[in-house]
Amino acid sequence: MSAKKSVVIDLKFERREIGAALAGAFSGRAVLHASDSGLDISDARYAIVWKPDPNIFQRAPKLEVLFSGGAGVDHILSMPGLPDIPIVRFVDESLTNRMSEWVVLQALSHLRQVPAYLGQQRERRWRELSQPEAGDITVGVMGLGVLGLDSVRKLGIMGFNVVGWSRSGKTIEGVETFDGGELDAFLARTDILVGLLPLTSDTRGIFNAALFGKLRQGGALGKPVFINAGRGGSQVDADLVGALESGVLGGASLDVFETEPLPADSPYWALENVFVTPHAASASDVRALFRNAEVQMTRYEAGQPLEHVVDVKAGY
Amino acid sequence: MSAKKSVVIDLKFERREIGAALAGAFSGRAVLHASDSGLDISDARYAIVWKPDPNIFQRAPKLEVLFSGGAGVDHILSMPGLPDIPIVRFVDESLTNRMSEWVVLQALSHLRQVPAYLGQQRERRWRELSQPEAGDITVGVMGLGVLGLDSVRKLGIMGFNVVGWSRSGKTIEGVETFDGGELDAFLARTDILVGLLPLTSDTRGIFNAALFGKLRQGGALGKPVFINAGRGGSQVDADLVGALESGVLGGASLDVFETEPLPADSPYWALENVFVTPHAASASDVRALFRNAEVQMTRYEAGQPLEHVVDVKAGY
Ligand SMILES: NC(=O)c1ccc[n+]([C@@H]2O[C@H](COP(=O)([O-])OP(=O)(O)OC[C@H]3O[C@@H](n4cnc5c(N)ncnc54)[C@H](OP(=O)(O)O)[C@@H]3O)[C@@H](O)[C@H]2O)c1
Ligand SMILES: NC(=O)c1ccc[n+]([C@@H]2O[C@H](COP(=O)([O-])OP(=O)(O)OC[C@H]3O[C@@H](n4cnc5c(N)ncnc54)[C@H](OP(=O)(O)O)[C@@H]3O)[C@@H](O)[C@H]2O)c1
Repeated sequence: MSAKKSVVIDLKFERREIGAALAGAFSGRAVLHASDSGLDISDARYAIVWKPDPNIFQRAPKLEVLFSGGAGVDHILSMPGLPDIPIVRFVDESLTNRMSEWVVLQALSHLRQVPAYLGQQRERRWRELSQPEAGDITVGVMGLGVLGLDSVRKLGIMGFNVVGWSRSGKTIEGVETFDGGELDAFLARTDILVGLLPLTSDTRGIFNAALFGKLRQGGALGKPVFINAGRGGSQVDADLVGALESGVLGGASLDVFETEPLPADSPYWALENVFVTPHAASASDVRALFRNAEVQMTRYEAGQPLEHVVDVKAGY
Repeated sequence: MSAKKSVVIDLKFERREIGAALAGAFSGRAVLHASDSGLDISDARYAIVWKPDPNIFQRAPKLEVLFSGGAGVDHILSMPGLPDIPIVRFVDESLTNRMSEWVVLQALSHLRQVPAYLGQQRERRWRELSQPEAGDITVGVMGLGVLGLDSVRKLGIMGFNVVGWSRSGKTIEGVETFDGGELDAFLARTDILVGLLPLTSDTRGIFNAALFGKLRQGGALGKPVFINAGRGGSQVDADLVGALESGVLGGASLDVFETEPLPADSPYWALENVFVTPHAASASDVRALFRNAEVQMTRYEAGQPLEHVVDVKAGY
């Protein structure tokens, strides 16, 4: 009876909301689960995936559109046998808001010396620390996409000076922006660096010793701070640990790592002034993901263009 | 040569910026230091004070205007022998911004489960926690003055639902407000309670067991959270510790306490999910304080009305 094209789902999320989110979703469509390895998914036309079965493209050769379960698509673009079909990434207001919560929280935590005050609290010590205000600090945001732009706006409202860097030049009111070629000038202005970049061949390993060495030293926080919620592959963990240990950096907040889950013997866990979260800065809301995908399928079947289609060559 | 009226200064701040801030300030005026107990300050017409010498009014009987070193004036109004002269409180953009930094930081910390993630970090444990977003939470702000209004606006921009409570009714776009008589209805809506009230005879002890018991239970955070940066005298510490220990409250961020400095044997220091700062949510910038006072003195001497004059009867 289903005239509508069928969907295969393969979401390796740590969350169990998938079943609940499916209730009422994709009405009139067959919904298949790739995790059921015996299942014939060969007729599926859409796939909604997050770190899918490496054989999914062999198992489902008729796919017409791929939907990423998150904002990033590096997990898809690196797959062997990737068919030449549109890849739609997940853009969602709630995903954006959650990321900005995390970014603003981390920037304020370093500004307001949370690690130092927590240390004093453990020692039952009442002592006011000298305290710069947000306006004394410049936050530099690398990546001015959907997520970066929202963080830039909210950091600005909290009083921070904000500068931004992206591949193509941007005009943002009240924010000085730098394009791809102006990285050094951008870094020299930055006290708190925020990474919101996709992982591509250009951004792999970009957060390395040379980059950390170019951040402004001697700003109002004393030493620069690094905050990353983009992708761990953009970060050279050995260099970052080195910069934290040698005092090139004064602190970090890290949601992403070269190896995830972060191994138990990683030095990050115990480094002073380093705050670790388990790739949880902004989780996709599965209901919203399915709602988004369903709307796009309807658009696609009506001959309208898909939205948020990835530029495979650029890698994001 | 000085035709201008003289100023006596008595600021018990933990900061040493007073000397630096005086350079270039109050030109043409004699500046006296009340802390110099042998000094004759009897001719002073203005006093700029924070927790001043209890004898200051006997020592300086010709005072015409009192300037508070901070936004609060409870430290002045409680003084015996207070003369019947205008009391000007400190209102300053930087003071306001710093307070909002602290309030938004604390609200986001509880939302994003910072204590739980710090605990996992100590155990080197990688585990994503289920995570409501700001829009699932209602922050209730008690006190909609200069500080409360700025916090309300910034909490709203971060995505929180915000409700507000103040003595007189207020209209704030996008925010449901409650007046003095509607406290219970306000509390029943509130997941995260933020105290930004002055200490007056009406607000003394207002944050007590009965009030905590009226906050919404079972919201998206599970249990309500209490954040206070107003005055410690508004809070019944025994009740608050009890509410935290019995689980009526799920957490707290406290900058103010009935007794300051907080005694080393206070249970707060070691309570889980409680974040203590040493009355440092928003420090007065001494330069700005002097600049503000100087402008007002000039206004006053030109016969113009003073700004931010306290209503002694209301107590703020
Ligand atoms: N930790 C988490 O929980 C989490 C959650 C969601 C997303 N993320 C990560 O966040 C990333 C960003 O998401 P988004 O939605 O903001 O992506 P987006 O809208 O595609 O924006 C990407 C931004 O990065 C810039 N960029 C890309 N390559 C660059 C290069 N080589 N040099 C300079 N700038 C470059 C782009 O520049 P142009 O503007 O010039 O194109 C753009 O401003 C995602 O790719 C994902 O990896 C992490
Ligand atoms: N921890 C720190 O570092 C720090 C720093 C600065 C200030 N503070 C504290 O913050 C307080 C607030 O500062 P502010 O500049 O926002 O003061 P404000 O402009 O005078 O505002 C006070 C607010 O509280 C409300 N209020 C007063 N008494 C009330 C009552 N009995 N019932 C209900 N609402 C009542 C007022 O209601 P109406 O609007 O109806 O008058 C007003 O909205 C200061 O008094 C000070 O104690 C703390």
